[in-house]
Amino acid sequence: MIKTIAVIGAGRMGGGIARSLAHDESFSVSVFDLDQGAIKRCVDAGAVASTSVPAAVAGAQLVITSLPMPEIVSSVYRDNVSTSPENSVWMDVSTIDSGTARQLEDLLAPGDRRFVACALGKGPAEAEAGTLPLFVGCAQGLLDELASVFKCIGESVHYLGSVEAAAAFKVISNMIGMTNLAVLAEGYELCHAYGVTDDAFVAALKDTGAWSYQADLRLPWMLGSDFANRFGVDLALKDVRLAVDSAARCGVPAPVGAAGLMQLASAHARGWGDEDVDALLKVVRSHDAG
Amino acid sequence: MIKTIAVIGAGRMGGGIARSLAHDESFSVSVFDLDQGAIKRCVDAGAVASTSVPAAVAGAQLVITSLPMPEIVSSVYRDNVSTSPENSVWMDVSTIDSGTARQLEDLLAPGDRRFVACALGKGPAEAEAGTLPLFVGCAQGLLDELASVFKCIGESVHYLGSVEAAAAFKVISNMIGMTNLAVLAEGYELCHAYGVTDDAFVAALKDTGAWSYQADLRLPWMLGSDFANRFGVDLALKDVRLAVDSAARCGVPAPVGAAGLMQLASAHARGWGDEDVDALLKVVRSHDAG
Repeated sequence: MIKTIAVIGAGRMGGGIARSLAHDESFSVSVFDLDQGAIKRCVDAGAVASTSVPAAVAGAQLVITSLPMPEIVSSVYRDNVSTSPENSVWMDVSTIDSGTARQLEDLLAPGDRRFVACALGKGPAEAEAGTLPLFVGCAQGLLDELASVFKCIGESVHYLGSVEAAAAFKVISNMIGMTNLAVLAEGYELCHAYGVTDDAFVAALKDTGAWSYQADLRLPWMLGSDFANRFGVDLALKDVRLAVDSAARCGVPAPVGAAGLMQLASAHARGWGDEDVDALLKVVRSHDAG
Repeated sequence: MIKTIAVIGAGRMGGGIARSLAHDESFSVSVFDLDQGAIKRCVDAGAVASTSVPAAVAGAQLVITSLPMPEIVSSVYRDNVSTSPENSVWMDVSTIDSGTARQLEDLLAPGDRRFVACALGKGPAEAEAGTLPLFVGCAQGLLDELASVFKCIGESVHYLGSVEAAAAFKVISNMIGMTNLAVLAEGYELCHAYGVTDDAFVAALKDTGAWSYQADLRLPWMLGSDFANRFGVDLALKDVRLAVDSAARCGVPAPVGAAGLMQLASAHARGWGDEDVDALLKVVRSHDAG
């Protein structure tokens, strides 16, 4: 049974996960982050502050990494794996590409350390509430060992097979969602050009086969020119870039996803990287609309 | 109040509409189609057979056209408008481009004849049941005059403004829906390449922002390699082609919709024009998968 857990990276997602685990008396949680404020918010919830990554992972049966970029994840693993107990489990909840997921699993193999790719659905609110959808790739035998952890941080566990599969699924699902949003923006702007009012557009579109999760969530923000960042252009750009790159490496044609990617790249190029992905509208909006 | 109605074109959609109207005692319905069987199915429901378009429209207060291509719609209007009573209303329920909608309205202006672009959502089952979503463009004053007709054939009336707007909305909604489907096919095939099972893919995708009406409806068919035609590649190709052409004419960039269009064109080129649009999967599927 897993009792000692280290969380490396206590940002919006990792911090919520650390606090969910710290609230559970069956776990002892140590936390490291470069930001002291981030550590404190976890300590207030019952976690123990660590002064370095090696100090955090030293006694941990489970190490959870939640870091911004695949390169940073890789470097943390390379520098600290040997410090962690043999037979420990390392679980990455960052969004990484499948190639990195493969490298991390290989890197852990000496000393029978095991790797779990656990991509997260939804956002910070669900991390805080312990209701994240989890997209898991690992040796199947690990699922039982991790069940109590998954139960504490997640609402649903989707076992996708290999670590590559889990890493790929996450970015692919974002490729689909963001491309749905990109073509929605095109369709909305075009209807707008024909004089269709916003209210009529929403009501009518709901009555067609064009409706989607993204339309339901983001069309109200889009129509209200509300570009406050919930899921930002630059994060989406990273994910969809990884998905399209995977498609190219695997030899699966993905021209539509690639077009969606380029719209995100346009949004970034025009300076909207820190805005919500509904800023895809501004990429297709006519100049007069501001 | 509208009492006499001519229906020109009694195929899967027009026939259902004619029968819905014929079942209603407040309307007298005459029907013309090149196919005698199609006429008979309406006569059995209480309509009167016409031997020609002029014979059908001669006494009609309302003429409903339901025909396969914009060019055919235009030619029927050109040849028969003068035969219809002055002040009559012509309502097209075919899928036409907005340019054709504008021409038809102009063509009807002499004799105070009025034009209604009434695009239809959903399919033949709803036409038969009188529960179609209606996407309506016309002079606003006409809505009251047509209320009893709309109530008989439709479940919801979405007033979109001009005749161009209604025509454009229909094909634009199909551009969005079909592009959602095209990128879904890409994402599915890519996950498949990573070894994600079909069941895991569906369950996990439902838990992400990638879900859509098209995923809900067509993913089961796609995964079952069921390409039986519900909404065919060639019909979708026509609609999305009109939408992308509209975008180009209006100066609204629609690169993602255009990529979706090209996937439909690929499906057509490979001989799958009469298969369901979920044949978009085959365009991106690897050769080994058959």
